[in-house]
Amino acid sequence: MPAQILDGKALAKKTEQELAQRVADLKARSNGQAPILATILVGDDPASATYVKMKGNACERIGMESLRIELPASTSTDELLAKIDELNNDPNVHGILLQHPVPEQIDERRCFDAISLEKDVDGVTCLGFGRMSMGEEAYGCATPKGIMRLLEAYDIELEGKHAVVVGRSAILGKPMAMMLLGANATVTICHSRTKNLPELVRQADIVVGAVGRPEFIKADWIKDGAVVVDAGYHPEKVGDIELEPLVDRVSAYTPVPGGVGPMTINTLIYQTVESGEKSIGQ
Amino acid sequence: MPAQILDGKALAKKTEQELAQRVADLKARSNGQAPILATILVGDDPASATYVKMKGNACERIGMESLRIELPASTSTDELLAKIDELNNDPNVHGILLQHPVPEQIDERRCFDAISLEKDVDGVTCLGFGRMSMGEEAYGCATPKGIMRLLEAYDIELEGKHAVVVGRSAILGKPMAMMLLGANATVTICHSRTKNLPELVRQADIVVGAVGRPEFIKADWIKDGAVVVDAGYHPEKVGDIELEPLVDRVSAYTPVPGGVGPMTINTLIYQTVESGEKSIGQ
Repeated sequence: MPAQILDGKALAKKTEQELAQRVADLKARSNGQAPILATILVGDDPASATYVKMKGNACERIGMESLRIELPASTSTDELLAKIDELNNDPNVHGILLQHPVPEQIDERRCFDAISLEKDVDGVTCLGFGRMSMGEEAYGCATPKGIMRLLEAYDIELEGKHAVVVGRSAILGKPMAMMLLGANATVTICHSRTKNLPELVRQADIVVGAVGRPEFIKADWIKDGAVVVDAGYHPEKVGDIELEPLVDRVSAYTPVPGGVGPMTINTLIYQTVESGEKSIGQ
Repeated sequence: MPAQILDGKALAKKTEQELAQRVADLKARSNGQAPILATILVGDDPASATYVKMKGNACERIGMESLRIELPASTSTDELLAKIDELNNDPNVHGILLQHPVPEQIDERRCFDAISLEKDVDGVTCLGFGRMSMGEEAYGCATPKGIMRLLEAYDIELEGKHAVVVGRSAILGKPMAMMLLGANATVTICHSRTKNLPELVRQADIVVGAVGRPEFIKADWIKDGAVVVDAGYHPEKVGDIELEPLVDRVSAYTPVPGGVGPMTINTLIYQTVESGEKSIGQ
């Protein structure tokens, strides 16, 4: 049986249609008020500018608005905090995205954590992570939450499965591990200090590549029938997992590109719509 | 070589001497002001009353004060929140302990999370958990943090080791896993839905029993030379791990009683002293 392709691109597209309808419904019952995502771009990194633009475009596609805030590269922590505070207190803003990375003079963690829980639709705050980990209501971190939504859409069973997450970043590996745990998977978290990584990956019913190094995880580490989730994307159009030899012997996999990537922005707008629904016209 | 006994009782006693000195120093430079731990006991569960008393006694032994607050079993969430708010705003209180469990009409998670980060010396808030997980400053949850302190005192190497945590509770398994990850261990989190638990435990360089069931983890699941940490304690004076057959073939273990248990209260008072040092006479 050929592997199931976990088609994030298709799911994102389908979800956008549903979200467009929800935004239209929301507008209809609130004199035209749409959810608004505020995006903050600090400095002029071209890749970051592109990401912010893509996020703004996704908002537009579903009839939502985005408020694009661009701050100079010389912005201080206090100036950024003041802007976040202003957005926290603006009742017309339903979600706040602070594009990572910010210039190095800024205390990024402090700025992320200044985003109010209700508007943390990108799921970057320590509080949101803690609440999600404990099963309390919070928006999930966009990439791992997008992966969870993708696995759910394809009815991938997680309960009792052994998930091996390779990588432990704040916005990917750690929240991914806690989300899989919340779904009753047994979870192993591996990272740069892990010994015998191939052996550990070989045990995985579900493997998540979240290391940020091209094809770092080798195909022959992965057992037959596994579910392969690749959160990496590199200029050579490969992910973190050597995927090509696997497509005929795993049970399901996310293609690169078109798997995890589209789900990240989709989750951001999905959660912004949720936030809008909670506050508009209530 | 016989296994090393990770003697929490002895370490707690030694630490109390150091803490008593720190409290004395603090008093000397602040006109006699000592750190104060506020303990909140809701209802009349005898076991909870005993725990609170033990915590108050530990404060006294090191020259610290405790403010014992006892609320009736009929206390509402709002009443408890009001009390916590009062303590958050009391500059003479440096730590707040809300004894678990509270009567069932109370929203315990909401009350835990109402404790301000600076006074969460028992490490029970979602925010504190999130910050600790991300490597930010926060008081650790008392039992897992006590285990980390015990492992550190005995120079147990964690980096690159495979730690298997059996249990995923909010105040034990989850924070334990994130602390071990922070110490660069590879971490597997197992729980009630885990399949092939014996096989997973067999891989552990470090195994942490945190399930709350007497001798649930069998000796023959544990490999020679492992480090065995038992966070359980049951009326029959055994922990979560079948320990007796292991003492000659593991490299180190926490005795039950006298291992993890004494480190929990010790960590509570240790963190209260830290909190006091941060705010008194600054």
